[in-house]
Amino acid sequence: MKRRVTIRDVATAAGVHPSTVSRALDPSNRRLVREDIALRIEHVSKTLGYRPNSAAHSLRTNRSHTIGVVVPDITNPIFPPIIRGIEDVLAAVGYVAILGNTDGNKERASKIVENLIDRGVDGLILASVEKEDKTVSSVLSAGIPMVTANRHSDDPSVCSVTHDETEGMRRILIHLASLGHHNIAYIGGPQTLSTGAERYAAFERYRNDLQLNPGGELIVFARAYGEVEGERCAEELLACGGRFTAIVCANDRLAVGAIAALRRRQIRCPEDISVTGYNDMPMMDQIQPPLTTIRTHQYRLGAEAATVLHSLIEGRDTGKHKVLPVELVIRGSTCPARGGREDGSQLQL
Amino acid sequence: MKRRVTIRDVATAAGVHPSTVSRALDPSNRRLVREDIALRIEHVSKTLGYRPNSAAHSLRTNRSHTIGVVVPDITNPIFPPIIRGIEDVLAAVGYVAILGNTDGNKERASKIVENLIDRGVDGLILASVEKEDKTVSSVLSAGIPMVTANRHSDDPSVCSVTHDETEGMRRILIHLASLGHHNIAYIGGPQTLSTGAERYAAFERYRNDLQLNPGGELIVFARAYGEVEGERCAEELLACGGRFTAIVCANDRLAVGAIAALRRRQIRCPEDISVTGYNDMPMMDQIQPPLTTIRTHQYRLGAEAATVLHSLIEGRDTGKHKVLPVELVIRGSTCPARGGREDGSQLQL
Repeated sequence: MKRRVTIRDVATAAGVHPSTVSRALDPSNRRLVREDIALRIEHVSKTLGYRPNSAAHSLRTNRSHTIGVVVPDITNPIFPPIIRGIEDVLAAVGYVAILGNTDGNKERASKIVENLIDRGVDGLILASVEKEDKTVSSVLSAGIPMVTANRHSDDPSVCSVTHDETEGMRRILIHLASLGHHNIAYIGGPQTLSTGAERYAAFERYRNDLQLNPGGELIVFARAYGEVEGERCAEELLACGGRFTAIVCANDRLAVGAIAALRRRQIRCPEDISVTGYNDMPMMDQIQPPLTTIRTHQYRLGAEAATVLHSLIEGRDTGKHKVLPVELVIRGSTCPARGGREDGSQLQL
Repeated sequence: MKRRVTIRDVATAAGVHPSTVSRALDPSNRRLVREDIALRIEHVSKTLGYRPNSAAHSLRTNRSHTIGVVVPDITNPIFPPIIRGIEDVLAAVGYVAILGNTDGNKERASKIVENLIDRGVDGLILASVEKEDKTVSSVLSAGIPMVTANRHSDDPSVCSVTHDETEGMRRILIHLASLGHHNIAYIGGPQTLSTGAERYAAFERYRNDLQLNPGGELIVFARAYGEVEGERCAEELLACGGRFTAIVCANDRLAVGAIAALRRRQIRCPEDISVTGYNDMPMMDQIQPPLTTIRTHQYRLGAEAATVLHSLIEGRDTGKHKVLPVELVIRGSTCPARGGREDGSQLQL
């Protein structure tokens, strides 16, 4: 491997002091160097393949032009588009992203954030944040600009970009009620996360408003947003023997698991039980049955979070909390309830 | 936002020179400072919340402990597990990854790699590499350690970690031939990529060995590894009017597109035409029909690539090219050929 060319190599070859090379190659200081010497230095620098050292530049400017992006797990399909949105916006303003995965583990999250701060990131986007989160306070006390993405913390002083969870759940329940479903089970997400807590609160609110589930509770909570937990929760609902014609799931992965559990018991979806998801992650139109779900805009969410963070880094004020709209996408996993009737025309909320 | 605490703040508060603070807080130089003073500095540093500046550290050690990871598009589901594998290995040795997306655009790839080199990355993992790739030569000439992941370049001096493409295609063709398929169409990937070229070469080799496709060519090439191109290529094959009972696709996304094209024409998969994929990306067991495919080990591939890169950075020699094994996963998208017969027991290659 070739040794990296240093500023000293350029200085020696050009017959000048290293500080002259440094001035000649820095646009804001070039005027301090005589033109013929600056040209000679440029020529030598190019011939040798010298690249300015970015660590030295960071030290001078006290900016690393690097931000940290922390997600629970990049292999969860909702996160890649968020990261892509962040990067596209950052690249346009000369920033790059360092990525960390927490696996939903609080200690790992703290360690990653500490490491990113020690590396001198100019800001942080946290998609891994819990409602009560110690990492948030450590970032605040380090004075590093921060935005939470997709989720938010309970601390209202922390900027966030999230989706309209309440509206999403409202649309799902109106859709199911309009198909004649009255007994609707719910598989909730972890209640330590803002998405889990808000979707569940909205489910309760509109279940009440729409006078659904007169017979009982029909609610189970998943310990994580994954397929295996979706299966487990669906099994639990079925084992309770409660009567229901639909299962609302707090995200798509829980819904995929729930549908697998139904299939194993030879319960047909949607003919016997309708199932809904949340997020419209990739492939949800290709699974069987294609999933009725709420479409969130993950790429846009990432891009907005990066825009807000860049403003914060530049010292400009932006709104604290952006809430993005969502859409209902109706596919094959929902149909009129057995014994119910389609009476959607009267439903208004 | 709070101002960041600097080494000068600590020095002032502790009543010492900044260089003394620097020595006291650097494990390798601490012995140069009197113990009581070092303890005082540590205490003050902790109280003020001082964090050493990593740019200064990089400048001293000429190591950024940062590597660049370049992928075509993080939202393509095969890349997140590769990145995850890279990060898990890197985190254990104190490195972090900066990510870049090329969208398969050569100029964008060059720009990203230049930017990463300018930022002083200690090494690069390129999952975006083409067979003939200028970015590879610019990394070589910059003297930066590099490994290509999933794909390799035509330059054998560049380290790579890839999958056994030949064996994967061999297993698919034996599987189909054993189900009585004799006329097998092929949707190839881009031939500028090693995966596209090697899977196609293996298809030709084993098609010949197994004496398949006596009637003609039945081959179409996709311009990109995506669902839309898979649909287009399947339409083209169907429009040619050639007789075939199976379509082998160079990756899963092409297969998902091909199955959609068949469905639109009300051609049943697998009863009328069997379809195979390649990679076993997430959800391929959930789509309808579940996809018969080759399982590649993307997480392991990323982890191996990071291990090789770390060895290169540390100046240790490793093998140049690692080739990981693959598995055939048989699911619902393949069945015995119409009019064919299962004669797999005799097939050996």
